[in-house]
Amino acid sequence: MSDNTPNSKKIEALLAKKKAHAASLNVDELSSKIFAGDFKALSETITLIESTNQQKSEIGQAVVAKCLNKNTDAIRIGITGVPGVGKSTFIESFGLYLVNKGLKVAVMAIDPSSEKSHGSILGDKTRMNKLAVHPNAFIRPTASSGSLGGVARNTRETIFLCEAAGFDIILIETVGVGQSETAVHSMTDFFLLLMLAGAGDELQGIKRGIMEMADAILITKADGENVKMANMARSEYKNALHLFPANDNEWIPKVETVSSIETRGIEKAWDIVDAFNRLTISNGSKQANRNQQEVYWMNETVKENLLKEFYQTDGIEAELTKIQSELIDGKITSYRAAEKIIKYYHERKRTI
Amino acid sequence: MSDNTPNSKKIEALLAKKKAHAASLNVDELSSKIFAGDFKALSETITLIESTNQQKSEIGQAVVAKCLNKNTDAIRIGITGVPGVGKSTFIESFGLYLVNKGLKVAVMAIDPSSEKSHGSILGDKTRMNKLAVHPNAFIRPTASSGSLGGVARNTRETIFLCEAAGFDIILIETVGVGQSETAVHSMTDFFLLLMLAGAGDELQGIKRGIMEMADAILITKADGENVKMANMARSEYKNALHLFPANDNEWIPKVETVSSIETRGIEKAWDIVDAFNRLTISNGSKQANRNQQEVYWMNETVKENLLKEFYQTDGIEAELTKIQSELIDGKITSYRAAEKIIKYYHERKRTI
Repeated sequence: MSDNTPNSKKIEALLAKKKAHAASLNVDELSSKIFAGDFKALSETITLIESTNQQKSEIGQAVVAKCLNKNTDAIRIGITGVPGVGKSTFIESFGLYLVNKGLKVAVMAIDPSSEKSHGSILGDKTRMNKLAVHPNAFIRPTASSGSLGGVARNTRETIFLCEAAGFDIILIETVGVGQSETAVHSMTDFFLLLMLAGAGDELQGIKRGIMEMADAILITKADGENVKMANMARSEYKNALHLFPANDNEWIPKVETVSSIETRGIEKAWDIVDAFNRLTISNGSKQANRNQQEVYWMNETVKENLLKEFYQTDGIEAELTKIQSELIDGKITSYRAAEKIIKYYHERKRTI
Repeated sequence: MSDNTPNSKKIEALLAKKKAHAASLNVDELSSKIFAGDFKALSETITLIESTNQQKSEIGQAVVAKCLNKNTDAIRIGITGVPGVGKSTFIESFGLYLVNKGLKVAVMAIDPSSEKSHGSILGDKTRMNKLAVHPNAFIRPTASSGSLGGVARNTRETIFLCEAAGFDIILIETVGVGQSETAVHSMTDFFLLLMLAGAGDELQGIKRGIMEMADAILITKADGENVKMANMARSEYKNALHLFPANDNEWIPKVETVSSIETRGIEKAWDIVDAFNRLTISNGSKQANRNQQEVYWMNETVKENLLKEFYQTDGIEAELTKIQSELIDGKITSYRAAEKIIKYYHERKRTI
């Protein structure tokens, strides 16, 4: 070691030191700007955590670490509903109502499909044009980074950054692809389901199990000739929710009608969220839920990483296809199949 | 190798050969007896698969392997409901109705809690005393083998054995502990939820998400003064289910009232199951669902086994407790926490 090119070693060490220093400067600068509510620093850091460049992403991570739990008063709201229910229109109206109350509002979306469609990336800001230009609103288009796990991770870290930047309300829209509702439900305090009146067919779009996650259902487009039907839908859903099992947090899900166009029902929507927030703070379930969510995401990530290691092992895929067809043909039980594939995995790992 | 005690080696090899021969005889004998519908051989094999003795369990496994997909006409029915709803009484009435129709009925239960309480082990047969003695009925008390994964595996293998033994109807009761409803739902064709009328408070016992799994809801104890309330509950649930998203298999969940004491509604319950069975056979969803279930259990078992290896690694638990408290204190993100613990795992594995 000592005998080869001591000079170049020295230079390398110096450069590395300089780089680390620059990165730490970056981290300190970005985080203090974020604490001061600087939108540009916020955007820049989100871009860093979303980056596939490891060095950049490490800097982003370091900023996130400084931003953890800086503002636990913020309310994280998940919003879902089938395409056409009027999610963007509602978020525009609701967001404007909140910023006009003096609250700072951040909006983001979870859309693992956007890599292909690019639909909502272009759409979000243009469909919320009044909110987008308001100085107290921050709209972050969906990152187009593949898997739900990756998108969920970026979104959760963005939540921490926004809270550190002083945002009071974090709105997270989900387009309902794959498991994205479950992901959003597991990272928010309050989960809002938007539905159309006189549905029937429209209901097909809502996946099973989503209704029971909702802390409130809002019947949208309750304007003009729709009002009567919306009111009917409201009492139907109210009766239906009434039959559901109670929540651990003592909250009884609410059903209301809204018209984003006529901006009716928007205040009521806020009253519901506010009441929920007060209740869950006073009975301790808001913090308890957040702690549970942290542990949930840790365990999910452990599981995801272990499974990724497994499924990405060379040869596993071909072996799995083979075993799966034995399984479907009834030649083997699913337990034997699992044992076989895991045995194969360990043998591969030993030889690689 | 060749120089040490060639004689004892020979004897050992002979003994092993003899043992393997005996085991294979056992397997052939047990499986042909099961195909002939022998209850004793069926019970014996279930005891083998439940055994913690590896040699015995291997023999059981070999019998199961011979029994796979021997009778795909059988209908697997999951039954759930809160304690006190009258599950045993319903199964007694429903089972008797079916055996009197000439059908062969097997009854089993999933109760991961039974290791502690031993409640349902003693209870099942005595609470179904008429069904228990009928020559076309086979009631297998819950195995008291710890984890849900283990119980689920034994139950699924018992289903294969019962079907090979010619049973037409497999009833699987769940007591609703932990994730047992999900487990039962994932191993049956038809999922039945029993509910009480005039509930409100009783509903608290039904976990969230269960209602949307139901292919039918039966309001129990619809006799005497309860009839009116049961009918009201019936139309309430009917309206509520109507608001749910549709099933992929085109089935619309049904709601009916039953009285096990007055044996009213029992035939209607069968008509519902029968209609479901015909529909799902004709549109192919019965087999498709079973195939999906096989793949599901394989993947679940892979996941379970990988996680078991992880969590049972020496030192992981202590490390996890440490990291988890950093997480809750907001010192670290859940992703970093997961990365840290997995890094620790790989280091441990390298040194062990």
